[in-house]
Amino acid sequence: MTSLLLTGSAELVTNDPGVGDGSPLGVLPDGAWVVEGGNVVWVGSRTEAPAADVAHDLAGRAVIPGFVDSHSHLVFAGDRAAEFTARMSGQPYSAGGIRSTVESTRAAGDELLAANLARLVTELTRQGTTTVEVKSGYGLTVIDEARCLALARQLTPETTYLGAHVVPDEYADDPAAYIDLVTGPMLDACAPYARWVDVFCEHGAFDVDAARAVLVAGRAMGLTPRIHANQLGPGPGVQLACEIGAASADHCTYLSDADVDALASADVVATLLPGVEFSTRSPYPDARRLLAAGVTVALATDCNPGSCYTTSIPLCIALAVREMAMTPAEALWSATMGGARALLRDDIGRLGVGSRADFAVLDAPSYVHLAYRPGVPLVHAVWRAGHRVV
Amino acid sequence: MTSLLLTGSAELVTNDPGVGDGSPLGVLPDGAWVVEGGNVVWVGSRTEAPAADVAHDLAGRAVIPGFVDSHSHLVFAGDRAAEFTARMSGQPYSAGGIRSTVESTRAAGDELLAANLARLVTELTRQGTTTVEVKSGYGLTVIDEARCLALARQLTPETTYLGAHVVPDEYADDPAAYIDLVTGPMLDACAPYARWVDVFCEHGAFDVDAARAVLVAGRAMGLTPRIHANQLGPGPGVQLACEIGAASADHCTYLSDADVDALASADVVATLLPGVEFSTRSPYPDARRLLAAGVTVALATDCNPGSCYTTSIPLCIALAVREMAMTPAEALWSATMGGARALLRDDIGRLGVGSRADFAVLDAPSYVHLAYRPGVPLVHAVWRAGHRVV
Repeated sequence: MTSLLLTGSAELVTNDPGVGDGSPLGVLPDGAWVVEGGNVVWVGSRTEAPAADVAHDLAGRAVIPGFVDSHSHLVFAGDRAAEFTARMSGQPYSAGGIRSTVESTRAAGDELLAANLARLVTELTRQGTTTVEVKSGYGLTVIDEARCLALARQLTPETTYLGAHVVPDEYADDPAAYIDLVTGPMLDACAPYARWVDVFCEHGAFDVDAARAVLVAGRAMGLTPRIHANQLGPGPGVQLACEIGAASADHCTYLSDADVDALASADVVATLLPGVEFSTRSPYPDARRLLAAGVTVALATDCNPGSCYTTSIPLCIALAVREMAMTPAEALWSATMGGARALLRDDIGRLGVGSRADFAVLDAPSYVHLAYRPGVPLVHAVWRAGHRVV
Repeated sequence: MTSLLLTGSAELVTNDPGVGDGSPLGVLPDGAWVVEGGNVVWVGSRTEAPAADVAHDLAGRAVIPGFVDSHSHLVFAGDRAAEFTARMSGQPYSAGGIRSTVESTRAAGDELLAANLARLVTELTRQGTTTVEVKSGYGLTVIDEARCLALARQLTPETTYLGAHVVPDEYADDPAAYIDLVTGPMLDACAPYARWVDVFCEHGAFDVDAARAVLVAGRAMGLTPRIHANQLGPGPGVQLACEIGAASADHCTYLSDADVDALASADVVATLLPGVEFSTRSPYPDARRLLAAGVTVALATDCNPGSCYTTSIPLCIALAVREMAMTPAEALWSATMGGARALLRDDIGRLGVGSRADFAVLDAPSYVHLAYRPGVPLVHAVWRAGHRVV
């Protein structure tokens, strides 16, 4: 196997508190690392670097672990730009929200869905994301959920079955029958293509009993639970996540003290999605309260055509700093290690011996520029499993 | 001269209300245009397009006039990432703000300053900006102000003499002597390289009498006034802009009813810079109040290493929609035609017969995506004076 030595970064973020400055980011000011077989096999100071077959110089750029976007909805057709304009202009709009995307998605052929998905994955990769979780949830029939997951599975192992996104129109009069479908034939068809099971536990979507039934059924088929919880108002979603041992409770905008305590005690990750609050003009979750309680916080995009159509983790970092008073260091950690924790992965989200060689090279001397220079495309190069992909 | 026909845009924004949908943006759903000698010589529907020497198909992408960024400070050395981190983390920080950039800039050679400037101009061009105004203001000596403007003049004709940015430390005990310098020898040295004269009229910077003296002296040397006004609190800056007939009053965060009336009556553009409020966690200006009063509103970045280190007009558009309740159409108009008005230009900021062929091609079917997809680098290609530059 060819070994590759990377040097010349102004600042290497490892996310290993045992190296460098001793902070959670483990920043090495003149770090070097060696990649072999797609993994990192050595990290340290440039002056101590071992010999390697090939050397690559990064010309003074900062290097960070590739972003781990642990929450997205990328398999769909159509867009909802008109709904966005109406919402942000304060006009009423009644075009059916998620259901309009369901209609477009069902009507789309596999080729169109795959092209849309590939375009979005290319776009997020260019912005530094090297691992992305992708949910179904715009098919809502057995065949459409299964084909959406099969398409996603071709691009990422982190696929999530979200048949329980909303109750589709055709089951409006009999939501219990839809739960039977989601926990029965639809689950059977989708489980082969999914790692995770998710449910939108919210007033207007699924109540706590339905949500529990969906997660328990998914777990029985080998899927691991995660959940959309407490986004639009207080509710039982976070407590359910903790009760059932979900990997992550996502959104967490409206939390009671008991919810915060439960997340900390159960070691369930709180995944915050500030792009949604940005694009819906809603209040942001209280990240500082979660951090103060010792909860593990992840940052992800929630990229979807309705409430947040961004693929940009750098924007989410800038929003986390501006709107949730996270420090630039906390925000970067949450978008890398936090995302990895939310996906129960220990091979990504960091740069250390044994980790996958996934990293982004920034046109900046420090990771701080991700928040300091909002909106600027700072990603110069992206490497995944030791190969340069951008 | 070779003529070039461009077709295949899903949506062409002309900013000519006489064409297309009749809105201020003048959107042609299947627009075509012909470029010759760097200018647009024909615009209309694809089906009526004349023959041309060369044809170029835009494959269904939306096209907008190139952004006109009418307020930036791009000639400097160093950055202030540590100050940013401290400010956003609520920590005290006393490292001297603008003065620390003045120190770095004075110490830098022309080559370094030119390289920094070129990097930022490349960066903003990639994000769709085809005209940028650049101010001095980090030299604050005769020689340093003049060399900063001479460097800027090599990249843009829209250069602004801002010797009156702050009173430098060496004049702290005698600010009147600094005004004498700014209106005397420094002006003489700078005027050959500048189109505009500007002053930071604010408590802690220059009072209204000093500001008036600077603008009047600049005008006597052939420069046209513009002003930093009412950013940090109420003040006389906007009234001075109207009294003196400045092209634009920039910031406009704290306005009285009389200020708004004066801007409307005097036809002075209000240039809003929401990236500053984003990066300093400050209240945003009230764009709707200005629009309701009939004031012409421009959007610009204010790119500078202290209060707002973004070159991204797309971010400013997204912020204008999210935080200032501008519609996506109003925000785009302000970032194109609004900027052109703030620079007293009628050849840019629009796509019509006689305009310069400056435009951005978006990886999106509509300009609405600039706000709907925040943080995503949507600019596919940029053309300036009929040549593709990105």
